[in-house]
Amino acid sequence: MQALRQFLGRIEVQTHGAGFIDVTAEIGIWLTNQRISTGLLTLYCRHTSASLTIQENADPSVLADLGTALERLAPRAGAYLHDAEGPDDMPAHIKTMLTSVSLSIPVMDGRMVLGVWQAIYLIEHRSRPHRRDLVVHVVGE
Amino acid sequence: MQALRQFLGRIEVQTHGAGFIDVTAEIGIWLTNQRISTGLLTLYCRHTSASLTIQENADPSVLADLGTALERLAPRAGAYLHDAEGPDDMPAHIKTMLTSVSLSIPVMDGRMVLGVWQAIYLIEHRSRPHRRDLVVHVVGE
Amino acid sequence: MQALRQFLGRIEVQTHGAGFIDVTAEIGIWLTNQRISTGLLTLYCRHTSASLTIQENADPSVLADLGTALERLAPRAGAYLHDAEGPDDMPAHIKTMLTSVSLSIPVMDGRMVLGVWQAIYLIEHRSRPHRRDLVVHVVGE
Repeated sequence: MQALRQFLGRIEVQTHGAGFIDVTAEIGIWLTNQRISTGLLTLYCRHTSASLTIQENADPSVLADLGTALERLAPRAGAYLHDAEGPDDMPAHIKTMLTSVSLSIPVMDGRMVLGVWQAIYLIEHRSRPHRRDLVVHVVGE
Repeated sequence: MQALRQFLGRIEVQTHGAGFIDVTAEIGIWLTNQRISTGLLTLYCRHTSASLTIQENADPSVLADLGTALERLAPRAGAYLHDAEGPDDMPAHIKTMLTSVSLSIPVMDGRMVLGVWQAIYLIEHRSRPHRRDLVVHVVGE
Repeated sequence: MQALRQFLGRIEVQTHGAGFIDVTAEIGIWLTNQRISTGLLTLYCRHTSASLTIQENADPSVLADLGTALERLAPRAGAYLHDAEGPDDMPAHIKTMLTSVSLSIPVMDGRMVLGVWQAIYLIEHRSRPHRRDLVVHVVGE
């Protein structure tokens, strides 16, 4: 067994308004470059109105339905105390709370152990485009 | 201080339709076999219609109420675009998004630091039985 | 590259009934004391009626709206099977399931890579004050 090593990186994602952006390939490339064969990868989203989820990558209508579900759970038409930043802001915070800010995925044979149908998505919850910062960490050998 | 080590394992869970399956004992046994005294254990679920949660293990009616709550948050009677795989499929994806795909639990004195009332559950969101794959990783000494 | 090291700690939080308690500073101080420059910090909540979230730290009305959103998603007025511990108990379990029991945050230059607007909150879901146990783990160099 070798000594464990770790690497830290940053991935910037340009969003185009509310929606799901598949970041699986970009994270996979970063991981390959670190030459870690076995370990644990953690992805962290540095925002409170964008978040992470791991979801089905086959049928795009799944993502549309997930977006609709989030809208229903955190409606724009709600009566929010925090409304100075627009009607899409407070729902964005609620959606962030209900999904994930960090995800940890084991690494085996140099690849994340994602299931066949799993992809990693950044979810933009705001209506306007944003630049979003992800931090990625891996520990392993 | 010893050098850190890591181990990776797989746990297969047979489900029996929608419901909560306590996987705490099985993960605890796996952990004991790795002989890690202090560290961090991560559990990962390789599916998009089954997920993880840590919940009360005392009164089974808590699990029934949690299931009812998830049904209410992701109703089968919803008008989903993605409906080719049955009325329980899209709600299963929503429930997965609202719960956890990965959980990280510190290890102390060779055991996960679960609270007195905490157990780890795999939640099957589909109506039919499935074989589910969990990946477990531990790093420590 | 140095050899990786890890540290494990406990943070006790006194709550004052339902609400959000900012634990960012306390975790930051603990991290500084471990002298880890680069690594991964994991925070774990040992309860099933209190949980964790990372949210906006600027406008306190965001926290009020998040609390209202959780009440709406897990109403006290629901017809729960598990009701022996009071009308706030089962909603507390549901809210715990919908938020986080563990959070993993990369560490860079000796600090958690929290975004500008991000703070770490313990959410007390019960009506009465409680002592809550958090376990914190860091691995790094």
